[in-house]
Amino acid sequence: MSIKNDLILRAAKGEQVERVPVWLMRQAGRILPEYRAVRAKSKNFIEFVKNPEMAAEVTIQPVDILGVDAAIIFSDILVIPEAMGLPYQMIESKGPVFEKTVKNRADVEALHVSSGEELNYVIKAIELTKKKLDNRVPLIGFCGAPWTLFAYMIEGKGSKTFSEAKKFLYTQPVLSHLLLEKIALSSINYLNAQIDAGADMVQIFDSWAGVLGPEQYNEFSLRYISMICEGINYRVPVTVFAKDAHFAIEEIAKIKCNTIGLDWTMNAANARKIVGNTKTLQGNADPCMLYSDEKTIEAEASKMLKAFGKDRYIANLGHGLYPDTDFNKVKYFVDCIKNHKF
Amino acid sequence: MSIKNDLILRAAKGEQVERVPVWLMRQAGRILPEYRAVRAKSKNFIEFVKNPEMAAEVTIQPVDILGVDAAIIFSDILVIPEAMGLPYQMIESKGPVFEKTVKNRADVEALHVSSGEELNYVIKAIELTKKKLDNRVPLIGFCGAPWTLFAYMIEGKGSKTFSEAKKFLYTQPVLSHLLLEKIALSSINYLNAQIDAGADMVQIFDSWAGVLGPEQYNEFSLRYISMICEGINYRVPVTVFAKDAHFAIEEIAKIKCNTIGLDWTMNAANARKIVGNTKTLQGNADPCMLYSDEKTIEAEASKMLKAFGKDRYIANLGHGLYPDTDFNKVKYFVDCIKNHKF
Repeated sequence: MSIKNDLILRAAKGEQVERVPVWLMRQAGRILPEYRAVRAKSKNFIEFVKNPEMAAEVTIQPVDILGVDAAIIFSDILVIPEAMGLPYQMIESKGPVFEKTVKNRADVEALHVSSGEELNYVIKAIELTKKKLDNRVPLIGFCGAPWTLFAYMIEGKGSKTFSEAKKFLYTQPVLSHLLLEKIALSSINYLNAQIDAGADMVQIFDSWAGVLGPEQYNEFSLRYISMICEGINYRVPVTVFAKDAHFAIEEIAKIKCNTIGLDWTMNAANARKIVGNTKTLQGNADPCMLYSDEKTIEAEASKMLKAFGKDRYIANLGHGLYPDTDFNKVKYFVDCIKNHKF
Repeated sequence: MSIKNDLILRAAKGEQVERVPVWLMRQAGRILPEYRAVRAKSKNFIEFVKNPEMAAEVTIQPVDILGVDAAIIFSDILVIPEAMGLPYQMIESKGPVFEKTVKNRADVEALHVSSGEELNYVIKAIELTKKKLDNRVPLIGFCGAPWTLFAYMIEGKGSKTFSEAKKFLYTQPVLSHLLLEKIALSSINYLNAQIDAGADMVQIFDSWAGVLGPEQYNEFSLRYISMICEGINYRVPVTVFAKDAHFAIEEIAKIKCNTIGLDWTMNAANARKIVGNTKTLQGNADPCMLYSDEKTIEAEASKMLKAFGKDRYIANLGHGLYPDTDFNKVKYFVDCIKNHKF
């Protein structure tokens, strides 16, 4: 059965579209009262993530409430470290915390390449979501980039500088590659399982790309993102979003992906010049812009659409929605994009 | 009396140099055991900053111990908010915390433009340092960029996104400009007082430049940095360091400054192309690189020097030294730069 609104898939493949498609990173999340109601039924975040019914329910909410052109499966990038043998907790208003971190060769060797089977709860959530979505819009699957997962696995929590993880790259390059490869192989299995279960496109999130310089980025991050893209081999469209990695856009444009996500520090025209016309661009409104009044939101949405143009473009933010954003403003932003006349 | 080693001043002005000068952001700091010994004599950080004798002592330490080509006065960018009427505390391993934050017009109006007199303790520290330095190397003065100080004054502490401060820009642009102007005027008075007291060059630190997009950066940050540069009017060389502001380099190159600081995400050749030949570049080694072995440090130092070239360049890091860096490695890095043959 074909998907009724397949705008995003066509935009990703560079095909003709009637209008620019739009979805928002973290659209299934705390901005929606309906999400918070479901979330309140679970003791903790991990239990919530592991419940396929709940995950499917909050995945579909933004399609119904915000009218976005795609759903993205509700999950977390840190399910991969957990599947590899490194469990974590999500501490309210603090973020993820790993009980154990990776310190040496024995720690790396103790981790296994996930076949994707440990993540069966995500696969079930995808199957359920696909059923409930009933082909209205495409479903996006995702994973974290190996470098970003590596950074958490070494640091054990978020960090402003990720200096421990970077120290590991500088002092243990061979071991770093070993761990990054294990993460990449796990991610390939995981994304392929998501695609088998019905994910119509996938996105790789490199949230901490920006703490690396260009050379380290190529060696320790992009290489493994590229490995994952090869492992998908265009089965479905792939988006790479490397936040704050302005220096890497040119190189990302060379790998086997369809779409490049941009943060709001990137100028649309410059990005297009660097990337060329064979990839789709995605982004890049500042999530804080949604704190503005409607007039500003409309003007900013319109400016963004004019800057990127109608084709080979997927409207989105340059980062995930911030939890304290008024969902009416978010809906207004989505409507502005959908109603824009070129 | 003229300064014996004036390499940095000449490099900043684009004059001939025998070799590339080097200093390091946060060189007067926790990496030095000698610093920690002086620091231990004070009850807290604020008391330490306000003690001119101690400040002068730790300012000179890296000149003696590391052999850097400049001293930078030991102080903190948040002395300006304090001088304007917004005191803060420095909480160990957490960072700065303001008791009160700026929330509305009344809060902005309650703050006054500092004449620089409230900061007499910094001025005294500069006078003492100049005496003790005995013209061996130049002394660098500094201040925070108005946007970075504004961000702390709204948030009351550090933040990953500075979404509260950005919300203020989006929802209260007029009030934002009023506060930013007050900070800029205070900073002009402050830097001019530092120069009167003997500072041989000054640097403006925009630590949170990277959370703004290009348009907001021009309107709310660069405009006030430029105002400060006009207020100095080339009395001494001025360096602007806007961390993570890759998108702003071209615009920074147009204001009344001599040197542009770069973080490690910037490619030297690209930066030179964007900036042209009328400004000096400063930077941009990754502080984490100093965790490497000596062989790597030497190779990285050499690569950096070759990429930037001998002229119109000041070697430095792309961010302040991280406190857990081995000072022997730091000294080795400084020596590599001083001994490099082009």
